[in-house]
Amino acid sequence: MSSPNGIVTLLTDFGAQDPFVGMMKGVMLSIDRELRLVDLTHGIEPQAIGDAAFWLEQSYRWFPAGTVHVVVVDPGVGSARRAVAMRAGGHYFVGPDNGSFELVVRRAASHEAREIVPERLGLSVPSRTFHGRDVFAPVGALLAAGKLVFEALGAPCELAASKRVPEPVSVEGGIDGVVVAVDRFGNLVTNVPASSVDNGASVTLGELTLTLVQAYSDVPVGSAAAVVGSCGTVELFVRDGSARERSGAERGDAVRLRASIRA
Amino acid sequence: MSSPNGIVTLLTDFGAQDPFVGMMKGVMLSIDRELRLVDLTHGIEPQAIGDAAFWLEQSYRWFPAGTVHVVVVDPGVGSARRAVAMRAGGHYFVGPDNGSFELVVRRAASHEAREIVPERLGLSVPSRTFHGRDVFAPVGALLAAGKLVFEALGAPCELAASKRVPEPVSVEGGIDGVVVAVDRFGNLVTNVPASSVDNGASVTLGELTLTLVQAYSDVPVGSAAAVVGSCGTVELFVRDGSARERSGAERGDAVRLRASIRA
Amino acid sequence: MSSPNGIVTLLTDFGAQDPFVGMMKGVMLSIDRELRLVDLTHGIEPQAIGDAAFWLEQSYRWFPAGTVHVVVVDPGVGSARRAVAMRAGGHYFVGPDNGSFELVVRRAASHEAREIVPERLGLSVPSRTFHGRDVFAPVGALLAAGKLVFEALGAPCELAASKRVPEPVSVEGGIDGVVVAVDRFGNLVTNVPASSVDNGASVTLGELTLTLVQAYSDVPVGSAAAVVGSCGTVELFVRDGSARERSGAERGDAVRLRASIRA
Repeated sequence: MSSPNGIVTLLTDFGAQDPFVGMMKGVMLSIDRELRLVDLTHGIEPQAIGDAAFWLEQSYRWFPAGTVHVVVVDPGVGSARRAVAMRAGGHYFVGPDNGSFELVVRRAASHEAREIVPERLGLSVPSRTFHGRDVFAPVGALLAAGKLVFEALGAPCELAASKRVPEPVSVEGGIDGVVVAVDRFGNLVTNVPASSVDNGASVTLGELTLTLVQAYSDVPVGSAAAVVGSCGTVELFVRDGSARERSGAERGDAVRLRASIRA
Repeated sequence: MSSPNGIVTLLTDFGAQDPFVGMMKGVMLSIDRELRLVDLTHGIEPQAIGDAAFWLEQSYRWFPAGTVHVVVVDPGVGSARRAVAMRAGGHYFVGPDNGSFELVVRRAASHEAREIVPERLGLSVPSRTFHGRDVFAPVGALLAAGKLVFEALGAPCELAASKRVPEPVSVEGGIDGVVVAVDRFGNLVTNVPASSVDNGASVTLGELTLTLVQAYSDVPVGSAAAVVGSCGTVELFVRDGSARERSGAERGDAVRLRASIRA
Repeated sequence: MSSPNGIVTLLTDFGAQDPFVGMMKGVMLSIDRELRLVDLTHGIEPQAIGDAAFWLEQSYRWFPAGTVHVVVVDPGVGSARRAVAMRAGGHYFVGPDNGSFELVVRRAASHEAREIVPERLGLSVPSRTFHGRDVFAPVGALLAAGKLVFEALGAPCELAASKRVPEPVSVEGGIDGVVVAVDRFGNLVTNVPASSVDNGASVTLGELTLTLVQAYSDVPVGSAAAVVGSCGTVELFVRDGSARERSGAERGDAVRLRASIRA
């Protein structure tokens, strides 16, 4: 069990236009000036909880154990949805209980959650619309700074059941998956894990059928293919181009892997 | 009176595409490697001084007293407009004297300003186009690092008069205000303070008339209403949607509150 | 020769939408929690190595000597292109050997490069597609933290020859240059150095011929002119407007300076 290490990451859908993230940092530095604050991204599409869940699970493990991850994609702010803190994989997580943590939980050996009741922690709640600033930032900071231990954050609770990020499904002769993310370069990240495919497998997306290769540079400039990407899953790309533009595909679109499936 | 605490915030219209903010941080870390540098936002629309003034006043108070706020939305760079430092509300502010600080001044009990003459502080001015890097970053860093006290920054001065951010006006049967900001979610932030309205009041914007509720979740998904937002003012929203798209409204558009006005 | 000072800058084409930069920071903080991590920009156009080379040279010198600059614009990731570290001008640079450093090298008195072979440094390479996270971030962090000295990063090597950023050319009666960058304000930054022109020179871009002035404020609002910009080169602008919109010009477009050329 790692104690908090003073690092706090932030993952939101607040974008870069408004100073909402800056306000959260002000709140945290008011609690402890020495905290290390790191942006994961604030470019999650507004209210896209599944995307937050996907990228959080991809990102958190690159940080040292004991890091606190504050995740605020919160369409239900001000409603009865719970605020929670969670411990899993040696890391800490703070945010609304809306499925943002589901993929971390699904992959982790175990997890433990606490219900946050702001008033019990002595937090005033000045707004009904910005709990990132008024609840999650201070709780994350108090935890990261060692001013409140995890057990003191609230009563143990179960996280709400959710299924925001789909899992691949084995089918006759292949695996069916979906595009779970489209990155800036137009690469289509799927949920089909590297472990399930061999080199030479083919991947079908709509009318495109692509071959799995080992690196972008294995195909000529402008060609489309598949590769095991940095997420550890099958990724569709166009070398020096955009697979999104080539295919017109979007998040949620179906992909199918065929042949060369490992036993 | 709080001494500078080593934290510097940055609020500019430089965007995220170019490395101009990075250069400013390099200048500041060259003065003191231990400074804490925090981005408020760099997404202010180019040269939109009023927006900077609005968001600065919303943001600065979430930081601990003694923070230095460097604000650079500076269409007049290279002209005769003054460079100033200001002290108000226990915080410090550095930037061009063009109205960026007007809302902080209007709301603070008192303020004190100093005129910055770069040459007198030993700063070389290599460009006529980027005082963010050449004047405001070093002055902010010297102040935050405790290498120059506020009084040593220059002679006392009066800030130029400006009225970039409008104030609401009481009218027969209501209050007239304007949309002062549109956030990433399409919420329309007005300048009508929470203290002037009761629950159940109605808000008119163009052809829309909306009811004031307590939280986003008080209306069905897709419905439009008004709420007291995180800025402490009336905000127009569409639940899980965009009030900007619904209404076509922009910054500066008029809103009117009727009924249930508090005495 | 400056030892690494614990500051690491990051310059990539990863954008702000995805958490790739956040992952790199996690890797670096896992190596040394005390590193100072500063974003130069992540808004370089995808795979625009020349833009990275230009802005790196413009930016690095504003940081204190001993800073490590990690630059990842890497269309050749996974191919045979080398990974390198370089020392020049008292600073350190880490990235793919693809021309990203060419302008720093061209302007510096001397430089020294080392070939990075990740396996020899004990780094595992889990992906063929994200060496920013798997190679450049850890090498930059090890160097900045003083855990590996420059000489231990690999064998001395020559950088690959490249010419991503053009140089201006003296011609009969003037200098021919190009637009090397377009900033957020629509200013057109050229590669013609300030030292080669006098006030009053004229600059031709397509059908526009502009006069060189001393500051934006020397012309009326809405007027186009040229100025020595913060890059130390001639820059074309429209006061309180966009020279890009006015001219339709793009990076790479030719400009010519005439008259008043200094001897």
